[in-house]
Amino acid sequence: MRPSPALLTDRYELTMLQAALADGTAHRRCVFEVFTRRLPPGRRYGVVAGTGRLLEALADFRFGSAELDWLADEGVVDDRTLAYLADYRFTGSMVGYAEGEVFFPSSPVLVAEGTFAETVLLETLVLSVLNYDSAVASAASRMSSAAVDRPCLEMGSRRAHEEAAVAAARAAVVAGFSATSNLEAGRRYGLTTIGTAAHAFTLLHDDEQEAFAAQVSSLGADTTLLVDTYDVRRGVERALAAAGTGLGAVRLDSGDLGGLAADVRHQLDAAGATGTKIVVTSDLDEFAIAALAVAPVDAYGVGTSLVTGSGAPTCGMVYKLVAREGADGEMRGVAKASRDKTSVGGRKSAARRLDADARAVAEVLVGGPDERVRSWRPGPDDGTLRALHVPLVTEGTIDPQWVGADGVRAAARRHRASRDELPRGARRLSADEAAVPTVTLALQG
Amino acid sequence: MRPSPALLTDRYELTMLQAALADGTAHRRCVFEVFTRRLPPGRRYGVVAGTGRLLEALADFRFGSAELDWLADEGVVDDRTLAYLADYRFTGSMVGYAEGEVFFPSSPVLVAEGTFAETVLLETLVLSVLNYDSAVASAASRMSSAAVDRPCLEMGSRRAHEEAAVAAARAAVVAGFSATSNLEAGRRYGLTTIGTAAHAFTLLHDDEQEAFAAQVSSLGADTTLLVDTYDVRRGVERALAAAGTGLGAVRLDSGDLGGLAADVRHQLDAAGATGTKIVVTSDLDEFAIAALAVAPVDAYGVGTSLVTGSGAPTCGMVYKLVAREGADGEMRGVAKASRDKTSVGGRKSAARRLDADARAVAEVLVGGPDERVRSWRPGPDDGTLRALHVPLVTEGTIDPQWVGADGVRAAARRHRASRDELPRGARRLSADEAAVPTVTLALQG
Repeated sequence: MRPSPALLTDRYELTMLQAALADGTAHRRCVFEVFTRRLPPGRRYGVVAGTGRLLEALADFRFGSAELDWLADEGVVDDRTLAYLADYRFTGSMVGYAEGEVFFPSSPVLVAEGTFAETVLLETLVLSVLNYDSAVASAASRMSSAAVDRPCLEMGSRRAHEEAAVAAARAAVVAGFSATSNLEAGRRYGLTTIGTAAHAFTLLHDDEQEAFAAQVSSLGADTTLLVDTYDVRRGVERALAAAGTGLGAVRLDSGDLGGLAADVRHQLDAAGATGTKIVVTSDLDEFAIAALAVAPVDAYGVGTSLVTGSGAPTCGMVYKLVAREGADGEMRGVAKASRDKTSVGGRKSAARRLDADARAVAEVLVGGPDERVRSWRPGPDDGTLRALHVPLVTEGTIDPQWVGADGVRAAARRHRASRDELPRGARRLSADEAAVPTVTLALQG
Repeated sequence: MRPSPALLTDRYELTMLQAALADGTAHRRCVFEVFTRRLPPGRRYGVVAGTGRLLEALADFRFGSAELDWLADEGVVDDRTLAYLADYRFTGSMVGYAEGEVFFPSSPVLVAEGTFAETVLLETLVLSVLNYDSAVASAASRMSSAAVDRPCLEMGSRRAHEEAAVAAARAAVVAGFSATSNLEAGRRYGLTTIGTAAHAFTLLHDDEQEAFAAQVSSLGADTTLLVDTYDVRRGVERALAAAGTGLGAVRLDSGDLGGLAADVRHQLDAAGATGTKIVVTSDLDEFAIAALAVAPVDAYGVGTSLVTGSGAPTCGMVYKLVAREGADGEMRGVAKASRDKTSVGGRKSAARRLDADARAVAEVLVGGPDERVRSWRPGPDDGTLRALHVPLVTEGTIDPQWVGADGVRAAARRHRASRDELPRGARRLSADEAAVPTVTLALQG
């Protein structure tokens, strides 16, 4: 039994619900759109992640007696609102970018439709999940891209909130990482877990040789030995003495990783351990990974910079009301007027325009009358448009393909395909604008 | 029933345990120390937070059949290790800085003692909790300090992982915030929750006047009306028309907040609404708060920059083995040799040296033989030393004073006292070194 996520919610969502139930507007049909106004400085694309986790949480989003009693005791909302919450379940619909897709400024990555009452309650949950997971995936994609064919291993749990760490491991795998050190992420999402020993294991023993012997004896010669507790050269000698030339790997966690890796590779090869791999860890980010491209490194372990989004620890996604039913029963687009926080009213669909080589050339936002946008699909004359919205929730029913371990595997495949579609040069790490422009296609009424 | 946190753990902790159980070193007594090598660039102090959450999680840290079955199915560890885990509970001891205390580079904020087996398993959980919560509290303290007597309100849930958001709200309150928008944080930790309406509520209605009337009718005239959906001046007029001069507050969420606040204050006062407060929100951080000191603002709502640590989204705390029993049964200090990641071996206690005005002048690390350090207390000749270590867990028993809502309230009081003890000038926001130097006091054997 998971605890209910229903109170992972900002108080104003419930007070708005109360006021809207009182004046009858709570039952107006609404369309909320999730998008980001800009990418982090220098970033060329973002990666949608967390969709599966969001849908898993949505399935559990119920106000049970524990939640209702607390809300009543605190006087957060009135009795009519409590009665509404007691029966709450989301019966609306959501479409959005499939998890793993890349996105750009203004991309409508999620569109939620339902009554005001049922959609307004989801703002915080939707944004918490998508903002964090997408921030991690967006950083992870740059790292796995910089690593080219070498595996990236997620090891950042200790530098993130303990539950965020599980989500970070999942998002990293969506965006190209091979495995994680986090056991709970392995259990929940079927991810491959990795890890052998820390410096503490060496220091626990009276000397390094004893520690390596104990590790090899228990975990086998194909384990990874951490060789930099004292002196790397002596560490490698002792590692080979303990495991022989069948040693799986050595790990370097400090110092000049590129220079050390070259020395260690030479030492291993000279000893005949040509199959022994070199894993490097120690405050790596996408730039450090790229800089190690010419070093004889076999895998990268990444921690802090991954789980904190490599300088962009959250996406700036917002959940905005873009259309709602009026007193006349008609849907109409709405937007606030602020100059510094622009929104474009009205429901939008989205597609990626591809060139003859199947490379993205533009992010196309499809706007117009609500019903036309809602049913829009690229037509025969739109051969170069790939539609981006997929159904996630249909009248309250969550499509099971997006959740669980299967959802993560599919998202990882989708991310590779989506990233491969980016224009040549879009994966360079140098700071630049969004890889493709965002343009608008206006459907007529 | 909370899910077990036992797998919120890096795999290598379990593989080290397996190897250490096999060679008998698992039962050596060990001392692990949590500290950070440096503060984020420009920061003058950090704030310990998360201690209460950590102890709550420690109480639940058990390997149940679900966890054991998964570990067995995945072949993570052998049967002997599974048997050990099945009976696992932490029977060791922890001392540390009380939650809310400020800290500096090398401050031993937590010291865990027990067998290698029982202490090594806690590394990831300890660091995940302390690194995230302390990062948020360290940022929050600068914000609440910059706000002086004006309340700071935590509103960042949407920009953090959904469970991290709860921890962030708690950490913010530890470090001087008054309230949070997050309902779950209110429920778990007895925090005051706040919030009334978003732009969506105004946009839901056919016009702003209707929206304000509905809100006032449902939530009362002392509610906070968000007045910047269309035009602020017209918004304030409508707010007063709806609520009268008894209106609780108006909120500004965009534009030039300082200029707008002055205009709105003038408009409110001219209308006789001299008691109506002005709340500002919109990407505030400690610098923006400081810049608004001369504006007629009554409260600050802070989101993104708070929950992401205002540029430092994690503390760099590490969990290092600093002493362990040898084959001879004696405790000895240990440390790895790396030049870029220095550690100082041996158990350490800590105290803050105060001057005659009770202002901190140094962070004193107390080192020496294990037993002397362990029992060290400032003596009569150490009148200016305030000891910083308090017992958190004694032979497996968690001291209840640190957990739950009481723990948060006490931590918030303690933080105010600890911050007030900083040298004059240490609370300036300009980039500088740690506010006091860290020095060492060596006890003789």
